[in-house]
Order: sequence, then structure tokens, then C-alpha cells
Amino acid sequence: MLITILPDNIQVEARVGDRILDVISRAGIKINASCGGQGTCGRCAIEVIKGNLKKDSSFGNNKKILACKSYVNDEAELVINIPSRERLSSHQILFHSENRDNIFTLNPIIKKIPLKLDHPTITNNTDDYTRLVNELKKAGYKNTYLNLEKLRELPTILREGEWEVTAVISELGDRDEVLSLEPRHPNNPIFGLAIDIGTTTIKVNLIDLTSGLILDSQGDYNGQQIYGDDVISRIIYSTEKNGLKNLRNAVLETINEQISILIRRQGIKIKDIYAAAVAGNTTMIHLFLGIPAKHIRLEPYIPAVKIFPHTISGKEAGLMINNEAAVCLLPAVGSYVGGDITSGVLATQISLRDKLTLFIDIGTNGEIVLGNSDFQISCACSAGPCFEGGSIKDGMRAMDGAIEKFDIDENYKITFEVIGNKKPVGICGSGLIDAVSSLLKRGFIDRTGQFNLNLNDSRLRKGEDGYEFVLVWGKDTAHGQDILILETDIKNIVRAKAAIFAGIRVLIKHMGIELDMIDEILIAGGFGNFLRFESAVAIGMLPPFPIEKFHFVGNTSLQGAQTVLTSLDAWKEVLNFAKGMTYLELSEGNEFMDEFISACFLPHTDLGLFNIV
Amino acid sequence: MLITILPDNIQVEARVGDRILDVISRAGIKINASCGGQGTCGRCAIEVIKGNLKKDSSFGNNKKILACKSYVNDEAELVINIPSRERLSSHQILFHSENRDNIFTLNPIIKKIPLKLDHPTITNNTDDYTRLVNELKKAGYKNTYLNLEKLRELPTILREGEWEVTAVISELGDRDEVLSLEPRHPNNPIFGLAIDIGTTTIKVNLIDLTSGLILDSQGDYNGQQIYGDDVISRIIYSTEKNGLKNLRNAVLETINEQISILIRRQGIKIKDIYAAAVAGNTTMIHLFLGIPAKHIRLEPYIPAVKIFPHTISGKEAGLMINNEAAVCLLPAVGSYVGGDITSGVLATQISLRDKLTLFIDIGTNGEIVLGNSDFQISCACSAGPCFEGGSIKDGMRAMDGAIEKFDIDENYKITFEVIGNKKPVGICGSGLIDAVSSLLKRGFIDRTGQFNLNLNDSRLRKGEDGYEFVLVWGKDTAHGQDILILETDIKNIVRAKAAIFAGIRVLIKHMGIELDMIDEILIAGGFGNFLRFESAVAIGMLPPFPIEKFHFVGNTSLQGAQTVLTSLDAWKEVLNFAKGMTYLELSEGNEFMDEFISACFLPHTDLGLFNIV
Repeated sequence: MLITILPDNIQVEARVGDRILDVISRAGIKINASCGGQGTCGRCAIEVIKGNLKKDSSFGNNKKILACKSYVNDEAELVINIPSRERLSSHQILFHSENRDNIFTLNPIIKKIPLKLDHPTITNNTDDYTRLVNELKKAGYKNTYLNLEKLRELPTILREGEWEVTAVISELGDRDEVLSLEPRHPNNPIFGLAIDIGTTTIKVNLIDLTSGLILDSQGDYNGQQIYGDDVISRIIYSTEKNGLKNLRNAVLETINEQISILIRRQGIKIKDIYAAAVAGNTTMIHLFLGIPAKHIRLEPYIPAVKIFPHTISGKEAGLMINNEAAVCLLPAVGSYVGGDITSGVLATQISLRDKLTLFIDIGTNGEIVLGNSDFQISCACSAGPCFEGGSIKDGMRAMDGAIEKFDIDENYKITFEVIGNKKPVGICGSGLIDAVSSLLKRGFIDRTGQFNLNLNDSRLRKGEDGYEFVLVWGKDTAHGQDILILETDIKNIVRAKAAIFAGIRVLIKHMGIELDMIDEILIAGGFGNFLRFESAVAIGMLPPFPIEKFHFVGNTSLQGAQTVLTSLDAWKEVLNFAKGMTYLELSEGNEFMDEFISACFLPHTDLGLFNIV
Repeated sequence: MLITILPDNIQVEARVGDRILDVISRAGIKINASCGGQGTCGRCAIEVIKGNLKKDSSFGNNKKILACKSYVNDEAELVINIPSRERLSSHQILFHSENRDNIFTLNPIIKKIPLKLDHPTITNNTDDYTRLVNELKKAGYKNTYLNLEKLRELPTILREGEWEVTAVISELGDRDEVLSLEPRHPNNPIFGLAIDIGTTTIKVNLIDLTSGLILDSQGDYNGQQIYGDDVISRIIYSTEKNGLKNLRNAVLETINEQISILIRRQGIKIKDIYAAAVAGNTTMIHLFLGIPAKHIRLEPYIPAVKIFPHTISGKEAGLMINNEAAVCLLPAVGSYVGGDITSGVLATQISLRDKLTLFIDIGTNGEIVLGNSDFQISCACSAGPCFEGGSIKDGMRAMDGAIEKFDIDENYKITFEVIGNKKPVGICGSGLIDAVSSLLKRGFIDRTGQFNLNLNDSRLRKGEDGYEFVLVWGKDTAHGQDILILETDIKNIVRAKAAIFAGIRVLIKHMGIELDMIDEILIAGGFGNFLRFESAVAIGMLPPFPIEKFHFVGNTSLQGAQTVLTSLDAWKEVLNFAKGMTYLELSEGNEFMDEFISACFLPHTDLGLFNIV
């Protein structure tokens, strides 16, 4: 039988008893099942337009039908609809963003070296291998390595090209490894991929390794999402039977899908992609490589590997690139400060500058680095999913239909902006911060985040889940329902912002400095671009600095990976500072907890800290 | 239908039209087809006991039936016999031989390192990989390399062993490569293989890498023999369709067969064999690795690779050992002075001693090295197959039934010794040299190698192929036929010995020294052990030195490979001197040809050279 899935109007073959989530997945539609199909997150809700389902359970007050707990009941016609807000639709992924002048000069990690060898004679009769090695030595490559497979090709290639040959060389590891040999001096370009493996999204940039230019970009949700939303739930799943394998395959599938789109769009060949620089948090890198990640989650939180100075081959990595390609991994600092962060520090050149910089990457985790050319110290604090729309009644990611800006003016008039200029369906992280800031400013909530019930406003009311504030009335929303913020939502946001501020305070105190000694604050991450610093300071998430000290730096994880591809010096730099960077484990000692509790007020228990505003 | 093969009495399935050589091969019987089945060498002759064959051609005067040119004719019963002299039967392979005191102290290229790592804590929270690398650093391994597969195993192994782990490390290449990791400190030994790939025979010694002791030895004919007898015919075959592949598989099959015998006999595990040191002539090493060898044969005689300083893995090499094992190749000096010779120079420590030494490895090719710790110079001269019994009417290899010693006393009484104390079936190289020397001494031949027809002796007669001398009467042989030496046989031996002596002279002259400045002469190779130096000097093959200057050194190719396994310093030494050793290409210029012509007399045109005797 065929099942019709709206609004895409896709028909897909199914049998009685098939689980609806699997049917949807077979149709090539990704839906947001953050609990991994356990029936607990309620994110995979669907509507039945025609026909019957067999339901295992339903979810929440409004009896949502969950795709993960529903099955095809009979052979009767079945039409289901996936409400747009639950779909992983087109969303904003940052590709290009403000970057500093690149101080690393172009020196790609992979190079094409055209060589002209002497013709052998009876008196100049050294072997083919030595002849090649000697010529590469003249070109500056002192430590040539050629594997057996290429040794086998060598005699034929040298003679076919009449002793003109082009070697593609990787200088990434401790050897100058010959990745390919071609007769003569063909003109084909060579490419590299900068890959950012986020817990939520994957981004792949295609780089021309000769010019260092970005040719194209492609991104999508990380296919691992069906196994859980955050790193912890993925690590837990990885310990199940085939869990690690499934997670590895899922992320590889997403990456390789992006690569195949790039290849098709740019008309290039797989074999011409000779390098990949991969940045991601420590867990993501473990799962990408198929390395057990479970000890990252368990005290004392030990990753299998932080800094892997060698390269792995394209084949070993499982990437759809040249089998011999050199894949390098941006180094991690600790279990929760990964290669995405060192990549960001590299891209923003913190380790090369005098200015004392605070670098914050806000996502599900908030990773914070404080440093300059003298020192770098880092920590990670769990902000929880609310800045990405998780555990918030009407929360959603920063995608089409999300309220990304929100304000209540002195006349209590509400204005907001929606991504994609549509009617809103929910509210994303930046909108939530704006909303809490406005509610505080206009007295709807007090410093503990509780609603001020003395205020007489129709928007403030008691609902099913306690007190709530109507951000947007149903008449102005895409689905006709009010978009709300609950008191529990506000508590979640307060805890999230408190975690980040506490992390900053711990780093500052650990270095024995004062907040105002910081020269600038860089905000990275997909989240960053839509954040209004004024609101973030107003709720006490960021320290009260003059606005000019804040800078958006966008997806620095991707930028850093790109920098490595185009600069051997950058690769050496990131390996070097990652080794020296201090990692503070916040679960150790009570300092973080004390700071966290103090920060669980709006903006803070210590108002003196926020005097500067 | 079934064909019966005698004398083994093996029955093998066959169809009308099958080639007999293939049927015999399918029966697991190796027969000596030196021409590669072209019908030109006559070595695969068989007898039909019962039934009919379809013959393509027959061979020689006595209308031999060739297995390579005969086919199953019909369904009638077929019984064939393979005359014993044409079979590759059990033969003498040298395993142990006189060796010098080993000046290399035991320092195996592969070591088992038991490590005890700190337990991680929340304050000592570095990653597993760094923890291992740091501990190896303390143990003296500065440049650890662990591949992705082992990185994946690392977390589990460390915790299973409660932070006690044993690493097997190869120091052969430019990295300290971890070949395996095991939890705790298990007591199992680790092994290495010394492998000598001769054109004719393969020898494999099993070494305990902890003690450096030889545990067992095993050898057999090189399975490539069915594709041709010498390197030239194998190179020619390698250029045919699948030729290179077939040759590689053949030699691997022989080696792996020896390994499986050793493993069974010693009760050890494949995975515990972590290293192999492989010595062989340049062509053998190319074919073993599946590297095109054809340019070795064509002017200007360029091998693909002479010195490969890196290791290849057991898996890449195709050996039945641990997949991760380190396989290293004894380096070559030129197309015709290979790793078997550098291995010999290493084993005899020529490059480490003051004594000016002449090293000669006599086989189908004669390879000669002159040198000491100051310099080494080498060349190769084609002696042809006659010292191994080839192109000699009644010639055979040094195996059971071969005359290995021969003398005619002053009363013209003949005495001889036969390998295995049997009735003779033919004569091997050392017997031939004795025979020519005796014939010269007793005046049966003159200085040009021609029979003196004035001598009246029933043994000297005219046969089908010209004049011949009966070495052993038919009544005293195993097959009842006279064992003969023809005038053409003597000519072949004179040319072979002249080539070797000319090679020696060219090296001497090239260095501007005199023959008597040489301190000692070392004779290596399977041939060497049965050679009487007096006879070799008498016919002018070796220079006329006092007998005490000559030494047998046996199979130094195997000894050198063994030395490398047990000494990292030896591996560095052989790489070093191989790079510096001069290789004289004798086909270049007329010097060798002039010397060769002068040496085509018994003992030499210049009798003054042989005054010293």
C-alpha cells in the first residue's frame, strides 16, 4: 500500500505494522526526533488527514500523535501531515562571516608539484624511486614517503610521462607523503574540504587548494539527530548494540551527501579532493572516527584522543574523497572543549594577538576561552538546549518562522521579527533572550524570573502549565495558536544564561584578573548572529561591556578548518596552542556551583557587577 | 576421468584436451619447467606407461615427451611416470652455516613494551592517547604512531587492563609505530621471520624476537619456477597478461606454505609474528611486492626501487603474519646486485672491518663485492645456469643423486661422491668444476677446453652430440645410462668461470689495486658449500690464493635478514652502506668483455696470474 505524506505530497510504500517514523524516514524526510524515537520528546508529532493509525502512546496534554509510536493499522488509504514546525526545514547555516585579515599566508597542506626528472642512462642508472625522491628533495621535500601501491605505479607513470611527473604531496604529518602521481603535468585543480561537524548541523566548504578560495558551500542537519539531540544522548546511544556504528554511519552519510552535492554542482571529481580538515566537538570527532566515546560522559571524563597530530586517509575516514587524501582533525583541549573551539581560536587568531579576548561559542554547550598570545584557558558549561529552542514550550531553532527579535516598548507595544518574513510558528534563542529582557525591563517578571501577577495585562494569564505570557496572539501566527512563554521557560533561560556567566567568572577568577581587563568579547556559533548583545547583557548572560567590545565572529569552527587547509603554519599553530591551553573541568570543586547560583538572578545577585551598563 | 601419476601414484581428475603439465600441477607436483612451458627446455619430460597422449611436439634426439606440449587424448585409462631426475625433490638447502661473531648486540626491530599508566582522575584528566604516548616517551619512544584502528581499541584495552597495557612497537621506520596493544602484561612471545627469496629456493627462519634465537627453519623451491628458471625468463613472463600477478602469487604461496609449516610445528599464532626481513635479488623483491620488473631487463637496466627505508605491513606484503607486522626489505645496490648481496655483506661484516675482502655469491648470476670499512664496490656477471646444472647434458642441482665431488688420480682411476650416498643420476656444479679440473690435470682436455683426441681411453668417445667423456659408466648409475660430460658442457663451464674471474678483475682494476692485496675471499650461496677451492682455482674461476684465504660463508642472504631482525643497528648499517656502495654495470664499456675473453682459457691466457698456486 502507498502512504501519502503532506505537505510534500510524497507517496511511499508501506505495510501493515510499519512504524510511521520509519516510513517517513524512507520517504527521505527528516523529522526532529530528539529523544531517538523513545516517545518522550514529542517532537515527531504528526496529523492524520485520512485513514487510521495504530497508536502505542500519545504525548502531552493535547494528545499529539507521535510518528515514533504509531504504526500502519490496515490497508485503508492513509494520508498524514507533518506540521511544518516539526520539520527540519531549510534553515540558516552560516557559511561566510566577518573574519579577521588572514595573517597566515597561503601555504596549502596539500600541493601539486610538477617535476622533471633526468632520463636514466647506463651511467646515471639509479632506481625510479630514488630519482623521484631526489627531485622532491630539490623541491624542498626532505622526507618523502610513497606507499607500496604508488611504488607499483611508479615505473609506468614515469615512462608514460617521459620522466615528467606531477606529485600531489601532503605535508601534514611527519612525512612528506605522496598522495598521487600522474604522468606529465596535467592542469587539473586539487581541492580540499573544510568540514564542521556540529551536534546539530554539518557544514562543508569546498576549497580550491591552489588559490585558497572557497568555491562552494553546503550544509544540512547532522543525520545523528535521530539518535538524540545532544552529545550526552548520543554517547548513551553509542554504547548500545551497533550504536557507535550507526552514529558513525549517520554522520558520514550526511557529510558524504553534502560532498556529492558539491561535486555535482561544481563538476569536479572525487579523486581530486585530496584533503579534509575536520572540526567538531570532542564527542562528534570520536563518533565520526568510530572511536568509543562513552568515557567522555563518565567521571573523570576522559576522551580517547584530544590531539591527533597525524593524518588519516580518506578511505579510513570513510569520506567520499580520494582514498589517499589526508584528513586532519582540529585538536581538542578536553572532553567538552573540542576541535570546534580550537578551530575558532585559530580563526580569530586569539593565540597570536596581544588583546585579552573572551571567546564564547554558544550552543547547547557554552564553550568559553579566555586568552591572548601569552596564555589560553578554557571551560565548557552546559547551557542546556533552550538557546536552540529545546525544553521551551514554543521554542524552535533559528529557522523559517522563528521569532528572532522581540521587544516591548514603554507603551507595552510588542514588535517582533520572524526569520523568512513569515507569520511566526515559534521562537528561537535570540528571540527568547529578547523576550526575557523585555519582560524584565517592563516589569512583567521580577529578578528571580517570576511573573509579577499584580500587573493587569490580558497577555499574562494562567494556563494549563502554570502562568504564561502571550508573545504573539494566535491571529498573527502561522498555526493560529498563541505563541507563549511559560514561567518554566523563563526559569530554563535564567539557568542557561547563569551557566554561561558563571563559566566566564570562573575563568576570570582562575586567572586572577578583573572582568574589565578583557579587551573584547567574540561570540561564535550559529546562534551568535541573531543575538542582541543589549538583551544578553540585560539578563546577565554576558558581562556589561560597552557594545563596541562585542563582535560576532560567526561559524569560526568552519573558518578555522578552512585556515588549516590553506596554511601549514596554521596547522602547526593550532596543534601547538591546543597542547598548551588549560582546560578547567567545571564539575570539579564548588566554585562553579557558587557562581552559578549567584548568577541565577536577573541580571545577577551582585548588581555591582552590572553597574557598567 | 582420472589420470594416474607415477611414481607418486597420485590420481587426478582430468578432461580430454587438458594439458599434462597443468594436470601434474593440479596434483600438487612441482616439475622443473625452466622455459615456462614453451617446449624449449625439455625439462618436463614424462613417460607414458599406459594410454595415449596428443603431442604437440617432442624434444631432442631421444624424442622426449614434454608435459608442456602434451594433452589428454581420449577417455581411455592414462598412466604417466615422471622420471625422478626431472622432479624437484628434496634437496639441500643451507640453514646454518659458519658465521662470524655477531658484533651487533641484541636490539630487535620489534619490541614488546609493558607499560603501567597512571589512573586518570578529575585533575589528571588527559586523554587516553596522550597518556599512552607520554608513557612510551618515558620508555624511550619519542615518535609514537598509532593508527586509527588501534585508536579505536585504545579506550577499551586501557580500562580492561586497569591501565596496564603492553605495546608492540616497531622502530624500523621513521616512526615508533605501535603494531598492537594488549591489556595487562601477557607473557606470549613475539616472532620474526628472516626470509631469503632465491630465484630457485626460498628459505624462512623463525626467530624469537625476545631472545634473538633461531627457533626453526623451513625451505622449498620458489613456486615461480614453473614460469621460468632464471630472473630473465621470469621478467619476460611478468610482462604477459597476469604475469606479474601470477609470479607474485607463486612466491607468496611458497613463502606462506613455509610459514604455515613453521607455525604448525612450533605451535605459534600468526598474529604473534610481528616482523619479516626479506632478502632477495632485485628482481625477486620486485616480483614479491608486485612491482613491475621489466625495466630491470632493458637497457639502461633501471629497477623501480633499490632502497626502501620504510616498512610495509604484513597485509600489504601478503604474508601470512600479523596484518600490522613490519616487513622490511634488505636494500639493493643495482639491478643485478640486490638485497641478497647487501644482506651477505651485512652478515659477513665486510663494511665494519679493515680487511680487504672479496665476497662472491655464485648462483645463476655471480655477484661480487670488493671492500672493507672504507669502501665497497660491486658487480654482477652472468655465469649462466651451468653451476646449477642447467645447459649441461647430465647437469642437475645439488640434490640427492648428484655427483658433488669428482677426481681422476694419477693412475686415471676415477673416484666420486654422490649427495645422499646413492647411485648417481647426474652431476651438480661442484662436481662439474672438479671434473673439468681433473680432465685438465690429466690431460684429457687442453687449455681451450677441447678434448685431447690423442689420448687412448675408452671413456673418451664420439657421441651423438660430438665428443664426450664418460664420468660414470651406466652400470654404476641409478638409471643405467652413462653419465657424460660433453665438449659443449666444458665450453659452458669455461665461459661461466671466465665471467666470474673477469668480474673480479674488473673490480680490482677499477679500484687500482692488485689481486694479492685482497685479505680474504668469502664464498656465499647454496653452491658454495660443495665447492672445492683447489678445483675452482685450477680452472681459473677463483684467483690463485693460499687455501686459508678462502672461506665458505653459506647462505649469507638469510643470515643478514636474521641480523636485521635482531638488531636495529644492523638495519641502519645496511641502509647506510647500500647507499654508498658502488655498482659497476658490466655491460657498459669493453673492459669486462676483454677480461672475459682473456679468461676463456684454462686457467687463463695470462699464466703469470696463476703463478702463486
